Amino acid sequence: MLTVNAIAAPSATEPLVRATIERRDLGPRDVLIEIRYAGICHSDIHTVRGEWGVQSYPLTVGHEIVGRVAEVGAEVSRHAVGDRVGVGCMVNSCRDCENCKAGHEQYCTNGNTGTYASVDRDGTITQGGYSTHIVVDEDFVLRVPETIPYEKAAPLLCAGITTYSPLVNWNAGPGRKVAVVGMGGLGHMAVKIAAAMGAEVTVLSQTLGKKDDGLAFGGGDYYATSDAATFEALKNTFDLIVNTVSAPIDMAAYLGLLRLDGTLVSVGAPPEPLTVPVFALFGNRRSFAGSGIGSIAETQEMLDFCAERGIAPEVEVIGADEVNDAYERVLRSDVRYRFVIDVDTLR
Amino acid sequence: MLTVNAIAAPSATEPLVRATIERRDLGPRDVLIEIRYAGICHSDIHTVRGEWGVQSYPLTVGHEIVGRVAEVGAEVSRHAVGDRVGVGCMVNSCRDCENCKAGHEQYCTNGNTGTYASVDRDGTITQGGYSTHIVVDEDFVLRVPETIPYEKAAPLLCAGITTYSPLVNWNAGPGRKVAVVGMGGLGHMAVKIAAAMGAEVTVLSQTLGKKDDGLAFGGGDYYATSDAATFEALKNTFDLIVNTVSAPIDMAAYLGLLRLDGTLVSVGAPPEPLTVPVFALFGNRRSFAGSGIGSIAETQEMLDFCAERGIAPEVEVIGADEVNDAYERVLRSDVRYRFVIDVDTLR
Repeated sequence: MLTVNAIAAPSATEPLVRATIERRDLGPRDVLIEIRYAGICHSDIHTVRGEWGVQSYPLTVGHEIVGRVAEVGAEVSRHAVGDRVGVGCMVNSCRDCENCKAGHEQYCTNGNTGTYASVDRDGTITQGGYSTHIVVDEDFVLRVPETIPYEKAAPLLCAGITTYSPLVNWNAGPGRKVAVVGMGGLGHMAVKIAAAMGAEVTVLSQTLGKKDDGLAFGGGDYYATSDAATFEALKNTFDLIVNTVSAPIDMAAYLGLLRLDGTLVSVGAPPEPLTVPVFALFGNRRSFAGSGIGSIAETQEMLDFCAERGIAPEVEVIGADEVNDAYERVLRSDVRYRFVIDVDTLR
Repeated sequence: MLTVNAIAAPSATEPLVRATIERRDLGPRDVLIEIRYAGICHSDIHTVRGEWGVQSYPLTVGHEIVGRVAEVGAEVSRHAVGDRVGVGCMVNSCRDCENCKAGHEQYCTNGNTGTYASVDRDGTITQGGYSTHIVVDEDFVLRVPETIPYEKAAPLLCAGITTYSPLVNWNAGPGRKVAVVGMGGLGHMAVKIAAAMGAEVTVLSQTLGKKDDGLAFGGGDYYATSDAATFEALKNTFDLIVNTVSAPIDMAAYLGLLRLDGTLVSVGAPPEPLTVPVFALFGNRRSFAGSGIGSIAETQEMLDFCAERGIAPEVEVIGADEVNDAYERVLRSDVRYRFVIDVDTLR
């Protein structure tokens, strides 16, 4: 057992504090990672505050993790000491269900093991990346290409893959019109990735406040959703809408923007159910879909794609003692565009 | 102008009565059809009762129409006097929008012209098939194959195409597991068509009351949705669920039945919006879609498919004076499986 420094939530309502947590002894197929940076995802906040279900505390969150391999188990073949690596939203799956066998372990029908707040196979609760070290099965460890700086690689492990996967699945590319709803951590990555894939990208953001950024990231158009005229002007337009907003949206209005066979895919998860008028789906044979992160193979593909195309998130690096302030700023959408914790400040 | 016998609703709340309505003079591209049978669709009831919006009365409904060509306009080339023909849910479209040009006139972005209760290009309100004759543009008239009896052909024009189109679009066929929710007019056709396409078909009906029929129609399995165990037993099972029920359903429960990349497509339209928990879409990357009838070309394809495979709906033929009783029985789900009005009783 390894005792390591971390940032933990003592309860659903108290601020996060410095703490120590334990990591399991290295198994034969485990990798010990010395974490360098950990991104802050809105999911972290939903989870520690108990908004997605009751949690066991103290709890360390964080599932955008990058660092260096410090030690490997006897049977590890995919990674070597010193490698630049990353860990995303999951650290294991059953490997036996239909979906795992098909290489879609993110959709493990027995439930994948989340990087934090999940029950691990030894019965302990997994603890996330706001921490100096983590022990992960080698199959769930990604290679981080040399050309992506550590701090910029971190958000790719959740924000990157969560947007890349639906863009690939619903064929974003040349000749396809893609709208991205929300210009936060996920949204700004969706814009960059969809544009790099060759799609015509339109940003739909509450205001025009981030318009210059949106166009710089590759958006061809930028509209304010607070303006009702937007929904009239863009009716029947998009093949794909990637909704990154984790608050309820007016589904009839957004579905109306889809052209024939268009899909609105939500990657942000409001705790409340959405209200969907079925008539809005009949027109243009529209679909409303969900997408959850991506597979391990697809995450590697995304990292390689981003390295090759020179795509990286915009980050604001903070120290361990700034996390509570950062949470407040995330909730106010006051971040351009992802906070990343410099884990050296925890050593 | 041609004055013809019909059945009309005097208002949203009164019973239907015998009446006369007017049909336009034959234009150069019009076909005059002597109607033989008209099916009764649940949509007829929703419409006459004002449940899908305020209507103009008196109103004649009916969009499952078959008969014989009695006269053709000077420029008509697709149909000849004496031909067996049919008319479904639409009688025109703009022919100019992206969807019309692509052959998907059912999704005309300017709104297709419904067979009844729509504003026609001359400003009149279209009147449906509970009537002895109808005048329709030749492009919206279908050929009814000789081998399908008139009374059995009628329900294909709505119930048939409405289920055929999504089954084709979402690839029902060998190796695909398809569930049909509801064993009414649409549902029983969905079972027959999906089975003919080679899919493994499961019927999900409120009770087991129609189980023998469901299996006879081609269902491999039959489950009662009133039994909570059904939703446990069939979790993560289906590639496609065709929901023919036009009342709200428990979306979380039904979405849970979809396997990876599965789609639940609604063809029944509840007036109330449905409540969709987004988390239920994340698992297995599920989709919730809508589908509205089918194109004219696809409707012809469906008629030919049904003729070739010997598929036809189960019908109960009634006279003109039994329509009000039939409506009550439709609302009680007391029909196996479609009422068809013998229009000779109107002459």
